[in-house]
Amino acid sequence: MAGDSHAPEMPEAAFETLDEPECLGLIAAGGVGRIGYTGRFGPTVVPVNYALYEGTIVFRTGRHSPMGEDLRTGIANAESKVAFEIDDISPATREGWSILVQGSAHPVDSEDERAAVIRSGVQPWAGGEKELFVRVKPTRITGRRIRRTGRPAAG
Amino acid sequence: MAGDSHAPEMPEAAFETLDEPECLGLIAAGGVGRIGYTGRFGPTVVPVNYALYEGTIVFRTGRHSPMGEDLRTGIANAESKVAFEIDDISPATREGWSILVQGSAHPVDSEDERAAVIRSGVQPWAGGEKELFVRVKPTRITGRRIRRTGRPAAG
Repeated sequence: MAGDSHAPEMPEAAFETLDEPECLGLIAAGGVGRIGYTGRFGPTVVPVNYALYEGTIVFRTGRHSPMGEDLRTGIANAESKVAFEIDDISPATREGWSILVQGSAHPVDSEDERAAVIRSGVQPWAGGEKELFVRVKPTRITGRRIRRTGRPAAG
Repeated sequence: MAGDSHAPEMPEAAFETLDEPECLGLIAAGGVGRIGYTGRFGPTVVPVNYALYEGTIVFRTGRHSPMGEDLRTGIANAESKVAFEIDDISPATREGWSILVQGSAHPVDSEDERAAVIRSGVQPWAGGEKELFVRVKPTRITGRRIRRTGRPAAG
């Protein structure tokens, strides 16, 4: 194919799927992930600092921020469908992994639940008032890893 | 606030917005970004290797992959709304930036356009058949940067 003339001399990629326990092990480390949802301007992806707490992804945002408002449907107990993605990819070797959690975003409104998720210790990075805790309850967790095999693809 | 008892002794965050030329300058470097869209299982976020080509984000996927099929609406000339996100965030200093491009995803179907976007040189990382070029035409580009100021927030 014409496009392959641009291929760098990289070993061929081996592609493997990660099972759910492997994914949860990688998610458990916490740190920066990216939350994806449909907001007022269409599909939206924003990095957040998160922690895994009792099987849910917990992060903080401003109650009156665009994300806080977009994730709140305004209907009591209704939840927004969201994606949560983490990855670790090396541009140098073109190896790495990525994980996609799909589920519903649940704004933490009750004082009891708030007291519980504060124990996750999750901090927002951007400063300002980030008083709204949001939990993502996974309904689907998928992951994949790319490794390079010994054989070069080009050359 | 109760949650602040968990605050690490980090300097306070200063938050600034990036204007569109700054965002385009950072996007122009190419590399790994994340595409967000509503797929068969709801909101979806997946890393892709991309290039900026004539003002559009170009990446490759498999024509019959779930993403390839989800981004194709099946209606000639109809386009899916997508998000494209890049960031560079240091977990150590909690400084960094992120950029969100919102727009429509246009599968490259004509041979003429395909011949043009091949010149972007963009390569898929995952190997396999990634013969479908997709271009994201931005309708909205926003960015933000977090810096730490000298004064610690806690202590």
